[in-house]
Amino acid sequence: MKQIITFGEVLMRISPIGNKKFIQSNAVEFYFGGTELNVGISLANFGGNVKHISSISDDFIGDTAVSYLNKFDLDTSSIVRSSRPLGVYFLEVGAVMRPSSISYNRSHSSFSEIVPSMVNWEKALENGKWFHWTGITPALNNGSHQTLLEGLKLARKKGMTVSADPTYRSGLWKYGEDAKEVLSELINYSTVFIGGVNEMNELLGTTYSYSNEDFIEASKALMVKFPSIEKVFDKIRTSINSSWHKIKARMWNGLEFKETTELDITHIVDRIGTGDAFAAGIIHGLLNFNDDKAMEFGNAACAIKHTYSGDVNYANEKDVLSILEGNVTGRLNR
Amino acid sequence: MKQIITFGEVLMRISPIGNKKFIQSNAVEFYFGGTELNVGISLANFGGNVKHISSISDDFIGDTAVSYLNKFDLDTSSIVRSSRPLGVYFLEVGAVMRPSSISYNRSHSSFSEIVPSMVNWEKALENGKWFHWTGITPALNNGSHQTLLEGLKLARKKGMTVSADPTYRSGLWKYGEDAKEVLSELINYSTVFIGGVNEMNELLGTTYSYSNEDFIEASKALMVKFPSIEKVFDKIRTSINSSWHKIKARMWNGLEFKETTELDITHIVDRIGTGDAFAAGIIHGLLNFNDDKAMEFGNAACAIKHTYSGDVNYANEKDVLSILEGNVTGRLNR
Amino acid sequence: MKQIITFGEVLMRISPIGNKKFIQSNAVEFYFGGTELNVGISLANFGGNVKHISSISDDFIGDTAVSYLNKFDLDTSSIVRSSRPLGVYFLEVGAVMRPSSISYNRSHSSFSEIVPSMVNWEKALENGKWFHWTGITPALNNGSHQTLLEGLKLARKKGMTVSADPTYRSGLWKYGEDAKEVLSELINYSTVFIGGVNEMNELLGTTYSYSNEDFIEASKALMVKFPSIEKVFDKIRTSINSSWHKIKARMWNGLEFKETTELDITHIVDRIGTGDAFAAGIIHGLLNFNDDKAMEFGNAACAIKHTYSGDVNYANEKDVLSILEGNVTGRLNR
Amino acid sequence: MKQIITFGEVLMRISPIGNKKFIQSNAVEFYFGGTELNVGISLANFGGNVKHISSISDDFIGDTAVSYLNKFDLDTSSIVRSSRPLGVYFLEVGAVMRPSSISYNRSHSSFSEIVPSMVNWEKALENGKWFHWTGITPALNNGSHQTLLEGLKLARKKGMTVSADPTYRSGLWKYGEDAKEVLSELINYSTVFIGGVNEMNELLGTTYSYSNEDFIEASKALMVKFPSIEKVFDKIRTSINSSWHKIKARMWNGLEFKETTELDITHIVDRIGTGDAFAAGIIHGLLNFNDDKAMEFGNAACAIKHTYSGDVNYANEKDVLSILEGNVTGRLNR
Amino acid sequence: MKQIITFGEVLMRISPIGNKKFIQSNAVEFYFGGTELNVGISLANFGGNVKHISSISDDFIGDTAVSYLNKFDLDTSSIVRSSRPLGVYFLEVGAVMRPSSISYNRSHSSFSEIVPSMVNWEKALENGKWFHWTGITPALNNGSHQTLLEGLKLARKKGMTVSADPTYRSGLWKYGEDAKEVLSELINYSTVFIGGVNEMNELLGTTYSYSNEDFIEASKALMVKFPSIEKVFDKIRTSINSSWHKIKARMWNGLEFKETTELDITHIVDRIGTGDAFAAGIIHGLLNFNDDKAMEFGNAACAIKHTYSGDVNYANEKDVLSILEGNVTGRLNR
Amino acid sequence: MKQIITFGEVLMRISPIGNKKFIQSNAVEFYFGGTELNVGISLANFGGNVKHISSISDDFIGDTAVSYLNKFDLDTSSIVRSSRPLGVYFLEVGAVMRPSSISYNRSHSSFSEIVPSMVNWEKALENGKWFHWTGITPALNNGSHQTLLEGLKLARKKGMTVSADPTYRSGLWKYGEDAKEVLSELINYSTVFIGGVNEMNELLGTTYSYSNEDFIEASKALMVKFPSIEKVFDKIRTSINSSWHKIKARMWNGLEFKETTELDITHIVDRIGTGDAFAAGIIHGLLNFNDDKAMEFGNAACAIKHTYSGDVNYANEKDVLSILEGNVTGRLNR
Repeated sequence: MKQIITFGEVLMRISPIGNKKFIQSNAVEFYFGGTELNVGISLANFGGNVKHISSISDDFIGDTAVSYLNKFDLDTSSIVRSSRPLGVYFLEVGAVMRPSSISYNRSHSSFSEIVPSMVNWEKALENGKWFHWTGITPALNNGSHQTLLEGLKLARKKGMTVSADPTYRSGLWKYGEDAKEVLSELINYSTVFIGGVNEMNELLGTTYSYSNEDFIEASKALMVKFPSIEKVFDKIRTSINSSWHKIKARMWNGLEFKETTELDITHIVDRIGTGDAFAAGIIHGLLNFNDDKAMEFGNAACAIKHTYSGDVNYANEKDVLSILEGNVTGRLNR
Repeated sequence: MKQIITFGEVLMRISPIGNKKFIQSNAVEFYFGGTELNVGISLANFGGNVKHISSISDDFIGDTAVSYLNKFDLDTSSIVRSSRPLGVYFLEVGAVMRPSSISYNRSHSSFSEIVPSMVNWEKALENGKWFHWTGITPALNNGSHQTLLEGLKLARKKGMTVSADPTYRSGLWKYGEDAKEVLSELINYSTVFIGGVNEMNELLGTTYSYSNEDFIEASKALMVKFPSIEKVFDKIRTSINSSWHKIKARMWNGLEFKETTELDITHIVDRIGTGDAFAAGIIHGLLNFNDDKAMEFGNAACAIKHTYSGDVNYANEKDVLSILEGNVTGRLNR
Repeated sequence: MKQIITFGEVLMRISPIGNKKFIQSNAVEFYFGGTELNVGISLANFGGNVKHISSISDDFIGDTAVSYLNKFDLDTSSIVRSSRPLGVYFLEVGAVMRPSSISYNRSHSSFSEIVPSMVNWEKALENGKWFHWTGITPALNNGSHQTLLEGLKLARKKGMTVSADPTYRSGLWKYGEDAKEVLSELINYSTVFIGGVNEMNELLGTTYSYSNEDFIEASKALMVKFPSIEKVFDKIRTSINSSWHKIKARMWNGLEFKETTELDITHIVDRIGTGDAFAAGIIHGLLNFNDDKAMEFGNAACAIKHTYSGDVNYANEKDVLSILEGNVTGRLNR
Repeated sequence: MKQIITFGEVLMRISPIGNKKFIQSNAVEFYFGGTELNVGISLANFGGNVKHISSISDDFIGDTAVSYLNKFDLDTSSIVRSSRPLGVYFLEVGAVMRPSSISYNRSHSSFSEIVPSMVNWEKALENGKWFHWTGITPALNNGSHQTLLEGLKLARKKGMTVSADPTYRSGLWKYGEDAKEVLSELINYSTVFIGGVNEMNELLGTTYSYSNEDFIEASKALMVKFPSIEKVFDKIRTSINSSWHKIKARMWNGLEFKETTELDITHIVDRIGTGDAFAAGIIHGLLNFNDDKAMEFGNAACAIKHTYSGDVNYANEKDVLSILEGNVTGRLNR
Repeated sequence: MKQIITFGEVLMRISPIGNKKFIQSNAVEFYFGGTELNVGISLANFGGNVKHISSISDDFIGDTAVSYLNKFDLDTSSIVRSSRPLGVYFLEVGAVMRPSSISYNRSHSSFSEIVPSMVNWEKALENGKWFHWTGITPALNNGSHQTLLEGLKLARKKGMTVSADPTYRSGLWKYGEDAKEVLSELINYSTVFIGGVNEMNELLGTTYSYSNEDFIEASKALMVKFPSIEKVFDKIRTSINSSWHKIKARMWNGLEFKETTELDITHIVDRIGTGDAFAAGIIHGLLNFNDDKAMEFGNAACAIKHTYSGDVNYANEKDVLSILEGNVTGRLNR
Repeated sequence: MKQIITFGEVLMRISPIGNKKFIQSNAVEFYFGGTELNVGISLANFGGNVKHISSISDDFIGDTAVSYLNKFDLDTSSIVRSSRPLGVYFLEVGAVMRPSSISYNRSHSSFSEIVPSMVNWEKALENGKWFHWTGITPALNNGSHQTLLEGLKLARKKGMTVSADPTYRSGLWKYGEDAKEVLSELINYSTVFIGGVNEMNELLGTTYSYSNEDFIEASKALMVKFPSIEKVFDKIRTSINSSWHKIKARMWNGLEFKETTELDITHIVDRIGTGDAFAAGIIHGLLNFNDDKAMEFGNAACAIKHTYSGDVNYANEKDVLSILEGNVTGRLNR
């Protein structure tokens, strides 16, 4: 079975048990995450053959991280080990009107100091069919940007599908390059755009609104500027508060616009990684179903992720399809 | 004080701490449950004198189970110990659109291999006034079916009230007998029917709807076919999702139809055992109040069980009566 | 920086982990609380310079309590240590229609046996600008009543602002004095009244309703009877159930009536200490903003406290101001 | 089966998880203990029919305590419930040269305020064969002293065996009576003395040494002064440090002296309650074996208790007999 | 890299946290184990390429088990999934003179009902170089016996090395076959014997003592009766108590006898799986070093396993080699 | 009361609960440590007035760290907050022959990027009497080296006593300076040397042995080369394995040599921070007792630290003095 490739940082996430603050209790728990890894694990849980490429510390924390990827049956054979530490982030999960808060310790991590010579892309992609990247990787450092660029070039040369989640996070991008310019170059190697009007406005320098009409116009404009892009998938989140959201998805595939009904997530457990679950759902859907069902699958995958703690979407394909079939009342599985 | 008798399997329930999945964390916790035991413990918590009869493993897990029953002051003197292991079930608690999931390891358990010669029913029932059984016990094995049948025959001979919760679970019933036939024979020894239109349709071969009119017609037909049945109690659950349900109860006692107002359970903690809490509430109500108040008590007992983790309804009589009196806003008890 | 003085009992709070009942699991956790301490810690978290005065046991539990106050940077230099044990309370947190329950073990605690000679008020207040007291302290014992009275007298003599939260809890007041009489004397040394129509009716012997009109009338009457009172702040809680409340605040400052919009707290984590968070918010607001903003700040502080477990409001000034600015949808802080 | 009666305080023990100090972590766990209760539970675990008599708080903490006694199948029917709180003690477990530390909150507890009129001794002892008391109970208060005295008088009148563990703890005895005088009167109602040379010197006003010769002389003198005493059982503990003890037992039964070999406890888990385990072992041994084997059983019971956390000796009769048979190398039980 | 094949049951192990008994606390934790799996995981931790073959339940517990094997990078591609539950065992860890206790629930598990048709041995062994089996597998059931036999025949046909750990556990072997006869047939397909004088006496019908002389004689006799056996490795455990053991190893390889010095394990954490760690150490040693160093490596691997909780030996090759080099004083690795 | 000043990095320590490895369980706990901070907290626990100076992250992790220092009543008023993350270290605690392992993530931490302009030494030391530094601080970076140097210069100018623990850790010192040269300069500003023959050989370029004679010679040579040094304190650790050490201390104060008896630490809980406990004990002893008793106090402080988990020595002065008085058998403190 051909592989889906994800490339990005593996971060250790540390959170207090029971949604407390760090000042309340010294009992904490850790998971591993990172936006591209979250997509990779979710795809493996859907049944995909996934290889994750990264640079990880060469110590017992790094060993634990690799074993975590193995646990989800990801191919870790292209992972690089270095003497730099693994990136860490601390998360305090909010509730109601209290937002969640994150503190990062990632700026000199093993992955952020990756350089192109560390990855053998020929070997890494030899069995690849799909490559997924996000805007976090080029934002970290020049080395991670260049390493990604090399990978994308080869992926396209090999005819792989490339999905881009060009998340723009202004807190990053500190190493001196221009986000818009860098992202634009990378999108030229991509075929599926997973992002919304905000990201398109950023890239296009436009001011489209959130309306469906504007979403379609923006998507068309995006495809003009970046002709490699064939499809755009977007999700719309309405937040009542930290504990209660509603989500729906929409798409423009160059031919038609579709949108899902809205799913009501009344008791959120953990919203970290829900965007990654959406991306994974879209990729899995496009690989296995049609555009329309991919959109529905992505939206349902995003929704169910809100019910798991940690970064990872533990749902398998059957779990997500069950939601698509309308099973949202939580009838017990015996 | 005369005893209420419950007869059925004691299962060890194992669940991850904090509503996680087993794949997320190896920190788990255990409780003991089982539908008839849940009814028995709830009745004891309401102040009843309850004897639970079962077969339990003769090892430290079985010792722990017996101590658990003792903890709630159940009479364990008729419990049989055998060399077969205690049944186990694993539960992952869902949230929002994610359903809870159960994995059973009970098919060759100590209880499922019970045979009539192992229970001295004369001694076990010598102080009995009420016998409660469910459709799970005859579904497990021929031995458990026959052991129950013997107990029911004696219970009726002694003039005890017999309540039946003829839950039909198709995943069980693998030992070669016909569920409808077996349940029908057992219901002939019963006087109170705790079940809904589904169960009645199953037994009658009918297709009544959920409407109150059809519920009354079904109940009447049930009483014609099973003349020992004097009263029927049903609860109606409306599920918004795994975390939010509404419940109400209704009854037909041969003379009149009554129904409760609906209780809104906006933040469910654990729904396992809520049906058992309903049954226990009905039994306690019939033993201490009138039919109407029994129905109200059963509905409130069912509702409050949703707020406790584990199989057990920890509410005492006062807690439930407080809800009947309209105290549902959660004012702090100092 | 001049100090805010809080005076009252420090209690150890013990609760089962994960909102269970004590009968369910022997894994529990402890915090320290007490209504005046909660106000003090919240004020310190807002950035205030706070001294808490109390009597605490002279053993490792007392050491742990003092270290807890130090942790929040309270001035503990006027704390008295005695051979009596620290007061303890056990809390079972409710959900939906199940109320929370408290069991106290405080009647012969270190604080309840305080007497005036144990506190050097001249030294304790030498740097004070504000004194906050509640109706719990005079309710405990004659010694705590007299000790408080001495402190209030000196505070007023020094021109400090005095805020009163005259909570009347009938389960206390067992040492033989008349609550109304005692509280009335103490209120005569107070300038800010943090309480509602119930408390005013109690003190005035009146029967005002919850309407805004009656609130204004009651406040006016209060200011007539207790001329030192300059402002009255009240909060109104609407409880859907234990897990879902709505709160708003209102005030009469002798010149104008104001009220806030209602905040909807859909998924309560812990409501203990929310009234104390309100009081702290009012005090911080009056010290730093105007009356109107103090009321808004108090209401938002009260609201966000519902999202933290334990007695303490962990929110800092920025967290609360963010809610005042309308940020209630829980957008992630990266 | 006739009952063994134990009478004494039920205390809630609270300790940090993992042998930490309270200042290190707020994750703690609770058990119930109390010297006489520990003896009772141990005897029930050995297979005895035990009734524990006490006064316990009438709240959810008291309910949890009663359920704890039920869990070990103790007869709780003579337990009194009162509005005073349950006594609490906090324990920090030491290691190596660091001693364990205890902080008590028991001075106005439910049990310490018991008075004779609260216990119906006729009914409580109607099925009794053995009564066990310790020096803690008369040390608490005049009421507990008098209540015990009444019970002892009736026990002797009914011909029950009475065992005394006259532990003298100087930190108690604060209510104004003379320990030696009070204990002497109580010992006159006792037949088995479980205590060492220290306790005998205290009662006799002598200065016997720890030598076997002096132990025999002291025992003889004791039996002269207290003619009801028929047997004396003593244990000798040699402490290397908090984690490593050696114990052996000796006895004088009026006719012969015996002593056990020394058991080496190299890795102590928890030493609280090991003296109570010794007493329970002696009582069980005297009821079921001969004097010599009772001494051996007591010593082995004491030893194995050091391997369980909490106050309770979880060993059953078979576990202790196995040690008597020389199985001390810990071969796995499959 | 050619694979080491292990074949055997995967069991879920459930133990109370903090070495308690199940009756003490409902907080437990789970791991996966099983004697052959323990060998496989240890070999993978040493750097080996290991495939484990088993039958595992087709539910979320089975998913969790497979992910556990993946976590250690075992090849799980030949694992069969069936509708029978995963075997479970409960463990209470002892201390000092208290032995550990095990309760099994494995008799109708997924693996115990395996039959030869369920494993495609040709495919499973296609990359194999070594096959390890133990006496547990043929003891479970006729199907597991026959499935193992088929695997062994093919392994030998392919020229693979076969190591046998013919542990004889009398509590198993309930399906009607003769242990000695069955094991003898299986040993005829084996080349390395990992077992001691007891196991050899069992198979030979002899009564050799534990002396080195008798060990050599027994080994020689074994090689006469089972000519395929080329080497015998044995370990000798001296138990002071449950917490303190000493171990050493010895071997006869047909040519020479060697023995190691004794390692003193003064503070045992968990002894489950230490025999499996020894077997894995021998196999790794034989694959990478010489006979003598294999024996030393096995002994050191066995020793260090006593310092990890759970069934698994987490030591890597470097950790074990460090002990061989005499680093046993625990100097901190920074 | 004049202050003791400690200056150094505050690190968050993260360790698995129950001495597991990170790969075994995701339940972990955190503390704060760092060699100089450990000394500071220990001194505060002995009753000293301690100010710790450091640079800490300006986020909720940094807030938690500051609150941790406050908890032990350290003066945190000279702590600098910066946008760089707090340093983190991961610790796996060993047992028996398995060493503990540490993984650091500190190389670009808030403290390691401190520069002299960030600390106002005049204000920081205005109330100082003693300054303690270690070799870790100058090893981190040029900025931390220079900042320390400025502080030392001022301390000496103000006549403060300066204690040096010139621990040389080769894994650090990566920023390009020569350890020996840097340390030598810093020692010229110090008066008390807390270190052994290894450290003296490093500084002197000599090869003294561990014998007492050589220790004296080395100390004399040190005082010749660094005339500001007045006293040398050393401790000698004999490791049986990770769980069992013996320690003793010795000193040369220019006039006489003294050594302590050896303390046997048979069941080590956690050895991290025991060297810091020694240093704190020496400092406290020199400030409060004479040289000889300081040495004894340091040794006992070091010993008792082995019985606490985490970096901190929780012992107070009384706890340590009790060991000096020979109380090492762990008699219970009631």
